[in-house]
Amino acid sequence: MMNNKTVSGDRFTVTYLITGDEKDAFTTARDICIEQTVEFPEELIYDSFIRNNIFGRIESFSCEDNNRFRAVISFAIEISAFELTQFLNVILGNISLKPGIIIDDITLPAGLLEYFQGPRFGVAGIRDIIGVYNRPLIATAIKPLGMNTGEFQHLSEKFTYGGIDIIKDDHGLSNQPFSAFKERVKNISDIVNGRHAGKTLYFPNITAPFSELIDRAYYAKDAGAAGVLISPALTGFDAMKHLADDKNFALPIMSHPAFIGSYLNGGTGFSHGTLLGTMMRLTGADIAVYPNFGGRFSFSKEQCNDIAAKCRSYMHHVKKIFPSPGGGMNFSNIPEMTEFYGIDTVYLMGGGLFKEGSDLAENCRKFMDMVSTCKT
Amino acid sequence: MMNNKTVSGDRFTVTYLITGDEKDAFTTARDICIEQTVEFPEELIYDSFIRNNIFGRIESFSCEDNNRFRAVISFAIEISAFELTQFLNVILGNISLKPGIIIDDITLPAGLLEYFQGPRFGVAGIRDIIGVYNRPLIATAIKPLGMNTGEFQHLSEKFTYGGIDIIKDDHGLSNQPFSAFKERVKNISDIVNGRHAGKTLYFPNITAPFSELIDRAYYAKDAGAAGVLISPALTGFDAMKHLADDKNFALPIMSHPAFIGSYLNGGTGFSHGTLLGTMMRLTGADIAVYPNFGGRFSFSKEQCNDIAAKCRSYMHHVKKIFPSPGGGMNFSNIPEMTEFYGIDTVYLMGGGLFKEGSDLAENCRKFMDMVSTCKT
Repeated sequence: MMNNKTVSGDRFTVTYLITGDEKDAFTTARDICIEQTVEFPEELIYDSFIRNNIFGRIESFSCEDNNRFRAVISFAIEISAFELTQFLNVILGNISLKPGIIIDDITLPAGLLEYFQGPRFGVAGIRDIIGVYNRPLIATAIKPLGMNTGEFQHLSEKFTYGGIDIIKDDHGLSNQPFSAFKERVKNISDIVNGRHAGKTLYFPNITAPFSELIDRAYYAKDAGAAGVLISPALTGFDAMKHLADDKNFALPIMSHPAFIGSYLNGGTGFSHGTLLGTMMRLTGADIAVYPNFGGRFSFSKEQCNDIAAKCRSYMHHVKKIFPSPGGGMNFSNIPEMTEFYGIDTVYLMGGGLFKEGSDLAENCRKFMDMVSTCKT
Repeated sequence: MMNNKTVSGDRFTVTYLITGDEKDAFTTARDICIEQTVEFPEELIYDSFIRNNIFGRIESFSCEDNNRFRAVISFAIEISAFELTQFLNVILGNISLKPGIIIDDITLPAGLLEYFQGPRFGVAGIRDIIGVYNRPLIATAIKPLGMNTGEFQHLSEKFTYGGIDIIKDDHGLSNQPFSAFKERVKNISDIVNGRHAGKTLYFPNITAPFSELIDRAYYAKDAGAAGVLISPALTGFDAMKHLADDKNFALPIMSHPAFIGSYLNGGTGFSHGTLLGTMMRLTGADIAVYPNFGGRFSFSKEQCNDIAAKCRSYMHHVKKIFPSPGGGMNFSNIPEMTEFYGIDTVYLMGGGLFKEGSDLAENCRKFMDMVSTCKT
């Protein structure tokens, strides 16, 4: 049996925003160092290896604003076991059950980042696939749930004819009897791949039970789908990472925020940019869908800006990805959105596309025209 | 291509507690019916099949308390695709991103419940394995992270000698270099299986990346482990369900709440009993670990009572499971806890077991003696 009680010295850091007065917030920061590592009464730990290397370490502690403090805490990379599941456990496992703690930033050193390849394509790779470099991309979804495959084919034909870059399944389409997965994916892929003059990509939703997910991903690829949609909060984040890391699969991944919002409540969880930007990117999304400000969700401009910034900021070898604001996008807010997000964005319009008039293909072209005026 | 636009008429119901005044709360309830199903402008849906069968349906709406309303909403079972991932998406997918919505109850009709076998063992099955029927069970964990396998063996020997029913890995032990998974699981299994007079069960932590989880589960079984520990919020809930449903695996499962707490913030998410009782049970846990009231976490007595009640309430074929309160259990609160939880409980003491004196085996025996006075 090996006695591997050594560490490299490499550490990753997590920035926590802690609610409370200075004394309570500092106590919480110290508690995080213990709870997230040894989860054991500190005073009963005599082993200096554990005290010096396993405990989290407060690197800085400062006042953020009234009744909120910013604690930067570092952890030995070895305690993550170089596994995403355990990494998530270290940063928010048990403390997710305690109040007033928000992860506002995560920084990984090279020794840990090598286990996070991130997206296979990113902004540059997706642009190469579509062959478009000087404008934003536009996307829409086939919906609503309850239509049959023939009806979705009809919609897909119009979207493709109208020049949409990416058609995704609605995230609620899985394998319902109304339009079974295999039937839908095969038929929509055929339509989308057959009709386009330019390049329209179809991303079916492969969010599925544990034992089905990989089969659906490969079925989609074999059927001619150009990418996939996945909701990592439903499947586990590592399922998405697994697919992104799979050299044989090698299709772009669009992440959807279904079931993830409870981590963004303002209670204990993540900041919007860290979860929907940094985490989606670290775990392999090429395009991160999230609700736009001003729509029917409650995200603020500041939160949306944070997401977009973290999709595109420098992160060593981890490629920049497309933020994809949706959820209430319509023709009237396109100018404000393009001004706000710029060109390296996948603009996602669902229901709004149907509200503009009865010629759906014409609406798609208008959508493209309007976003194409977007400046770099 | 089939035109399967039919439904059985069977519906599942979700009870939402919605924060707001009566008008806003009712608007939210109506919104849930649309957002969680068609996610499409209601006024643009002309298809009567979809309007009548796919939209959620408000079954009742009543005042819960000051500024909070109880809406019972039903959905056609077919929209779940009979898959856990999509079921979770229907009940809380997009609305997880909106404020003030808590799932307080879930009721499944027989037509959907048949896809949820629940735990393989439950209270009765675990009692049969251990051969103990007239007292609660006691559990502890090997920890802290940073010890090597030899040190964990030493602890396990004492716990086993002291008569602990279940020894689990700390949920933060995965495959760190200090004590690699395979080495630890093999050696601890040997110790625990070799020394006991009665029946001590070892539950290693198999929470792991997507591609490793099943291998670890089977490695643990082959090495002689009696059950496994899994944190479903880290792996995805369906990974736990998959293992529970696997006839060849067929070992008891203990669920851990790591990374799940953000769903319990009091913002949008679940009530404590629904998530840590009902959901853990539906997805295959035989024993559900959660933080006890009065410990270092912030759960109230009422919340803990709700969890325990939902672990044990009647749910058709879905077996009753053991609530397992831990997280701050110590000798001084045993009387209050046993009075509160009764005998069908796995009492979990970690650090507290070390605080009682230097003879760990003796502390285990004292723990057993104290909980054994528990009345039915």
